[in-house]
Amino acid sequence: MASSPFRSREERDADRVQKREAVLRAAVRMFNAQGFHATSLDDVAASLGVSKPTIYHYLGNKDQVLLECVTRGLEQLREAADATRAQPGNGLDRLRRFLRRYAETMMEDFGRCVVRTPDEALSGESRARFRALKREIDGGMRKLIEEGIEDGSIAPVDVRMASFALAGALNWPGRWHRPDGPESAGDIAGQMVDILTAGLAPRLSEH
Amino acid sequence: MASSPFRSREERDADRVQKREAVLRAAVRMFNAQGFHATSLDDVAASLGVSKPTIYHYLGNKDQVLLECVTRGLEQLREAADATRAQPGNGLDRLRRFLRRYAETMMEDFGRCVVRTPDEALSGESRARFRALKREIDGGMRKLIEEGIEDGSIAPVDVRMASFALAGALNWPGRWHRPDGPESAGDIAGQMVDILTAGLAPRLSEH
Repeated sequence: MASSPFRSREERDADRVQKREAVLRAAVRMFNAQGFHATSLDDVAASLGVSKPTIYHYLGNKDQVLLECVTRGLEQLREAADATRAQPGNGLDRLRRFLRRYAETMMEDFGRCVVRTPDEALSGESRARFRALKREIDGGMRKLIEEGIEDGSIAPVDVRMASFALAGALNWPGRWHRPDGPESAGDIAGQMVDILTAGLAPRLSEH
Repeated sequence: MASSPFRSREERDADRVQKREAVLRAAVRMFNAQGFHATSLDDVAASLGVSKPTIYHYLGNKDQVLLECVTRGLEQLREAADATRAQPGNGLDRLRRFLRRYAETMMEDFGRCVVRTPDEALSGESRARFRALKREIDGGMRKLIEEGIEDGSIAPVDVRMASFALAGALNWPGRWHRPDGPESAGDIAGQMVDILTAGLAPRLSEH
């Protein structure tokens, strides 16, 4: 087997997955660094030393590439929400765990792309898909907040507004955080979640 | 005077200001609705029934138009910070007042443009100016937080992180809020600021 000049189906499949991944990673980094509109698939192809048809072959046109990038980011958030829901602790503990992972994701390649992509950057069908995925994440966040309110670990609050406020605060590092900066994504995420949990006003009479 | 076919210098100046304002308002609304890159100055000119050179005459090229739009939004925030600093009340009261105005601004035309404009949409010099203005607003926000910590009305916190968390939470409505939606910008701003002040965790033993 090892000496055969022909690769097995498994090897070919693995190779394809790896190449597709490399193309996607190169694309998302370029979109994040110089903006979606300023990036052409020619630039992405050139950065990998391949041709533009190669990009099309693995990922489709530019709109499809962007949809795949933001879908990856949003799926990471969905997985984090699902994983968190199954964990022990009260509602606030679970929400905090989700929020930390949420913030960290927003400082990674695909999450940064989610924050940096306004709805109107995508075309019709892709835009609808992007919005549907974002609504799903928002739904997961609201469910976690509701569970915390039910068990008394989160103060009664307008769930929709709270979800928007939390998401906004934790999306924003995707715009200002430099991956090569002095603070790790985990540190920033932890500090932000603490601030959002405690609030600005001092907590009186709590020991 | 009223019957003279010639306009006074004052009338001409006022006319110029009014026209410039109309062009700027048309541009910012188009940038917000369909994205900066998808908007040409030809579109803006056509929406006003004027020619593209008219746009150039009043505002310059597309990069200069965008810089003027975001500068307007950021100057509104700076004025709000300055006005708040002079007001009575403790540090938290003043910060809350500023944050409400900040959130409202982000749901208005020029504020929405600030949120929707990533640094890389602007070219060299304009980008530097945009960043400098944003740093100034962040500095004003930090000063307000510091004053609240000093007088004990705000809990001790990492001022930089708190400023980023607050700004992120209150920037985000510029992305999701629909001006024709059921909730007023003032209501949303008020609710968000309450959530950020109180935090998620219930406040125990406070009466």
